[in-house]
Amino acid sequence: MNTFGNHFRISIFGESHGKWVGVTIDGCPAGIPLLESDLLPDLERRKAGAAGTTPRKEDDLPIFVSGIFNDKTTGAPLTIVFENNNIRSADYDAIKNTPRPGHADFVLRQKFNGFNDHRGGGHSSGRLTVALVAAGVVARKILEGISINAVLTEAGGSNDIETAISEAVKNQDSIGGIVSCTVKGLPVGIGEPFFNSLESVISHAVFSIPAVKGIEFGSGFAAARMHGSVHNDAIINEHGATGTNNAGGINGGISNGNDVCFRIAVKPASSTPKEQQTWNNATRSVEAFTVKGRHDLCIALRVPVVLEAVTAIALADLRMAQMR
Amino acid sequence: MNTFGNHFRISIFGESHGKWVGVTIDGCPAGIPLLESDLLPDLERRKAGAAGTTPRKEDDLPIFVSGIFNDKTTGAPLTIVFENNNIRSADYDAIKNTPRPGHADFVLRQKFNGFNDHRGGGHSSGRLTVALVAAGVVARKILEGISINAVLTEAGGSNDIETAISEAVKNQDSIGGIVSCTVKGLPVGIGEPFFNSLESVISHAVFSIPAVKGIEFGSGFAAARMHGSVHNDAIINEHGATGTNNAGGINGGISNGNDVCFRIAVKPASSTPKEQQTWNNATRSVEAFTVKGRHDLCIALRVPVVLEAVTAIALADLRMAQMR
Amino acid sequence: MNTFGNHFRISIFGESHGKWVGVTIDGCPAGIPLLESDLLPDLERRKAGAAGTTPRKEDDLPIFVSGIFNDKTTGAPLTIVFENNNIRSADYDAIKNTPRPGHADFVLRQKFNGFNDHRGGGHSSGRLTVALVAAGVVARKILEGISINAVLTEAGGSNDIETAISEAVKNQDSIGGIVSCTVKGLPVGIGEPFFNSLESVISHAVFSIPAVKGIEFGSGFAAARMHGSVHNDAIINEHGATGTNNAGGINGGISNGNDVCFRIAVKPASSTPKEQQTWNNATRSVEAFTVKGRHDLCIALRVPVVLEAVTAIALADLRMAQMR
Amino acid sequence: MNTFGNHFRISIFGESHGKWVGVTIDGCPAGIPLLESDLLPDLERRKAGAAGTTPRKEDDLPIFVSGIFNDKTTGAPLTIVFENNNIRSADYDAIKNTPRPGHADFVLRQKFNGFNDHRGGGHSSGRLTVALVAAGVVARKILEGISINAVLTEAGGSNDIETAISEAVKNQDSIGGIVSCTVKGLPVGIGEPFFNSLESVISHAVFSIPAVKGIEFGSGFAAARMHGSVHNDAIINEHGATGTNNAGGINGGISNGNDVCFRIAVKPASSTPKEQQTWNNATRSVEAFTVKGRHDLCIALRVPVVLEAVTAIALADLRMAQMR
Repeated sequence: MNTFGNHFRISIFGESHGKWVGVTIDGCPAGIPLLESDLLPDLERRKAGAAGTTPRKEDDLPIFVSGIFNDKTTGAPLTIVFENNNIRSADYDAIKNTPRPGHADFVLRQKFNGFNDHRGGGHSSGRLTVALVAAGVVARKILEGISINAVLTEAGGSNDIETAISEAVKNQDSIGGIVSCTVKGLPVGIGEPFFNSLESVISHAVFSIPAVKGIEFGSGFAAARMHGSVHNDAIINEHGATGTNNAGGINGGISNGNDVCFRIAVKPASSTPKEQQTWNNATRSVEAFTVKGRHDLCIALRVPVVLEAVTAIALADLRMAQMR
Repeated sequence: MNTFGNHFRISIFGESHGKWVGVTIDGCPAGIPLLESDLLPDLERRKAGAAGTTPRKEDDLPIFVSGIFNDKTTGAPLTIVFENNNIRSADYDAIKNTPRPGHADFVLRQKFNGFNDHRGGGHSSGRLTVALVAAGVVARKILEGISINAVLTEAGGSNDIETAISEAVKNQDSIGGIVSCTVKGLPVGIGEPFFNSLESVISHAVFSIPAVKGIEFGSGFAAARMHGSVHNDAIINEHGATGTNNAGGINGGISNGNDVCFRIAVKPASSTPKEQQTWNNATRSVEAFTVKGRHDLCIALRVPVVLEAVTAIALADLRMAQMR
Repeated sequence: MNTFGNHFRISIFGESHGKWVGVTIDGCPAGIPLLESDLLPDLERRKAGAAGTTPRKEDDLPIFVSGIFNDKTTGAPLTIVFENNNIRSADYDAIKNTPRPGHADFVLRQKFNGFNDHRGGGHSSGRLTVALVAAGVVARKILEGISINAVLTEAGGSNDIETAISEAVKNQDSIGGIVSCTVKGLPVGIGEPFFNSLESVISHAVFSIPAVKGIEFGSGFAAARMHGSVHNDAIINEHGATGTNNAGGINGGISNGNDVCFRIAVKPASSTPKEQQTWNNATRSVEAFTVKGRHDLCIALRVPVVLEAVTAIALADLRMAQMR
Repeated sequence: MNTFGNHFRISIFGESHGKWVGVTIDGCPAGIPLLESDLLPDLERRKAGAAGTTPRKEDDLPIFVSGIFNDKTTGAPLTIVFENNNIRSADYDAIKNTPRPGHADFVLRQKFNGFNDHRGGGHSSGRLTVALVAAGVVARKILEGISINAVLTEAGGSNDIETAISEAVKNQDSIGGIVSCTVKGLPVGIGEPFFNSLESVISHAVFSIPAVKGIEFGSGFAAARMHGSVHNDAIINEHGATGTNNAGGINGGISNGNDVCFRIAVKPASSTPKEQQTWNNATRSVEAFTVKGRHDLCIALRVPVVLEAVTAIALADLRMAQMR
């Protein structure tokens, strides 16, 4: 379903080339000051334009449809929409017969019996992350005293990211990256046994970001190679502070008061300018294929703000569960 | 909450040192043949006993409480319980004042204001995975034609697992491991946009297994270092078969008909025999600490059958969503 | 929450005097033909204008925001909005201090700490039923072969409804009514034990219609005065047809293949032109009070189409649950 | 599904003639004192034995399976089971071919393709209400300061209930009844727009009680015959107290601080000793039929304690929603 969360619940709608994309937030407490302009900084961070990102630019001006009165939330559903005003649908006609490798064209056509809106990935497009970012701004408002910070720490296998992007532009081949996220100030006790552990809920949210293929908390995969006596974080005071943080701030699926740390793997954009092979359903053969349309060479560049947003959404939901 | 799934929905209950642990499965179709003995092989795989696993042994005999009539499911809630008949609770008295590093003792006490059953980890104990394994057997019954296979591919950083275990026993220090899982036969189209992607739902389930700290699908973290032209899996026939499988059988969060592959990182058991440091709330100082009780040196050994179970549960839920 | 249903799930948003009101339908199967004009007949039935209904008239033209491609549903969330283009908010300033009797003014102010949009009832306004009617049209599309028919059978205590309305207009005092609903063609087996009985789910949906204060199925309250030998409906063929229908087509919470029949009680509109008493928070005394604004004298007139809509929504959800 | 509630969530399992029936409560706060003996008074009220109720008697001794430690709730799932120790299944063999009128035999067989446990109504039996009563006791514990009181006000059409029962015994024909429920002390603001109105959630819960066929809040069906100026309850102080209570303590689906009042219609037990007609699938004709087994002549006698229980469960869930 297109809804995430039980207490701070978001529902997204819209397609890459449709009229609007949007999000409805249900369960947002009343009385939170919120202006459309509050959303602009994060929307700007997400926006295309830097080297390595798609030349498609949307205005990305949020429109509040409901749930706001006198510049404050009302407790009623808060719906925010964005116009899609920069659409070149003709670019996508070819994919009806030649599903793009790495993309969801083939699976969406199968799953929805060919009725899905295939233009630009339709409802599965990265375009929808504009709605996630908007909801993330609202989520942060109910996470007072908690900071969420994500950074691209590696692109194309290098931590000199600027150079990596230049190489990708030169090679005309997309590259992936690693994004690290740190949450500071999260109180002890966030995360719900047995199935809504902090890792479960964050990873559930995070894998809704297109192109994410892995997540690890604290020492993550490296932990599999440690001894218990090394991996265990000694508790050093009554508030649960630990000397090391191999657990990434989470024990038994519950925040322990230390920084919550995790890293995600972002695959290279499937829409690479390089020639590829795919099945052509018209000619019934494998054929060379070149992606058309405007795309990011390094989508990982745009992921940090989206990662912060979905993390905020996940934490807002869990925190409201805890506040009962 | 202690419930997972929307269509094939499981709810678990019980504590490590309580009377019973159990699971209720709601949404299981009627007419599926099911005997208590059908559960034994997987329960046996999970059971303690091998070198590196805890000497605590339970009989682990499943008792069907409801939902079965004439050896078939009825469509009513199917409840299965297991007796806890091998309990030495005195072992755990110390942890009231000295929360064990790496364990959830500290966070549970905070979260539940000290009312949690602290004995053996209480409701957050690995003991609860016996209920997951039972539910997994039922889930597999509604995944006809689909195989799920998990193997421990690495322990203590080595793929010679037997030697790694011996070393751990010799060192008296716990070790972690990597478990790989492959799902064969999953039809195209499993996974629900936007938030219930196949990765989202599997990872949500997987992170409910105690000690899991990372997950990656297909090439996972390695994908972050590939070029798009290499990472993209060329589609080579009309059924969506791909030449490579860097995507791990998933595009846009939806199964593409190829093998679904993922790997998880299991941290070393927190209960290592090695001396550690922790805060003592009675003396109000950091003190040396040695874990008592009976524990696994390499819990990763017991994870594959649990991983298969939660994967089956996640897939059963998504498949029933798809069958609408 | 502002969401109804687990499989065919609707979420509504908007306020009486906000920009738009709307609904998002999640879980709607792909491939259903749907034009904006398909919604017009039911929207027209709901619209104001007849004697006894409010002079406020909206154009009520539905705008499809998402989920439709080439005039068919895509399987993605289907969002429909309506502009509010006939707003006179000044009418409502008085209610800040003098909560209108029978209305939700007082409780909404308390519940949302004064942050709710109080104009015209805000999110709790009958205006929102336009979104329910829109969703009802879509729900009916997936209830092929099933008819839902609701009629106003009594107004102001009389079954001569036209006369009752004339009297209400003459008396300038609002009146209530009884609406009966009959569902034909519902297959055997709709309704989910134990908590999602057909009665439970229908009544849950129905009591979201403003002004409904009672519901009874089949013989309903009269059944409480019958003997079992009279009330029981004899089964007269292998398809479960019954000679009488005191059960209203439902046994054990599950449809039995006969007509599903129920009746609801609609209270008189709280906004009656007659003078009333209420607490004035400014003067801190009970004072005479006259409602301003434009309102229905017999809201029951507008209920049948809304009742059909929510019934369709409830049945669509249960039917999709059953189709698993 | 067999789960009710989002915050205080109960799941029931078991069959009339199975091993145990039980309930799991998820979301119960930690630290609530709870003894098995706390449940006995309400269980006793529900128990059979009075004139007009079935001679089947169960011990109905609750067994706490999980979620309790040192006589207090732990915050983990609280599972309570009851043994079925007085079963005469042979009584029910006949119903395989001759579905009992008024019962769910026919619909359950259709819905579950004949795999349902048909003995004594299986999972749809009134026996399951023992689990509801148990959960109700727990729910009341988190509704401090709130009283819920239900009384049988009418049986067989008369308010001289004792005489009505004697007549039913003499006639050997079952009778129905009316049960009234009053909730005192409920704070203002309980009930969640738009779909989880207080009426919606209470009625959803109430219609899960077998044999309930109608519900009305406040003046209910009588409201349909009142004028607005009469029906409206004048607000007489700043706390929202009203002079009359036609609204039954609910405006706009939200509690207004006055008593919440509603009435339900209970049909006569379908298992009446009187001869009836039903379809015989073996002989393929309509035949005379007499119910065997032990049954209540006036099940309405046993409904008040169950009604209080489900009301408490519904209110506990809504109150916890409100406490966020």
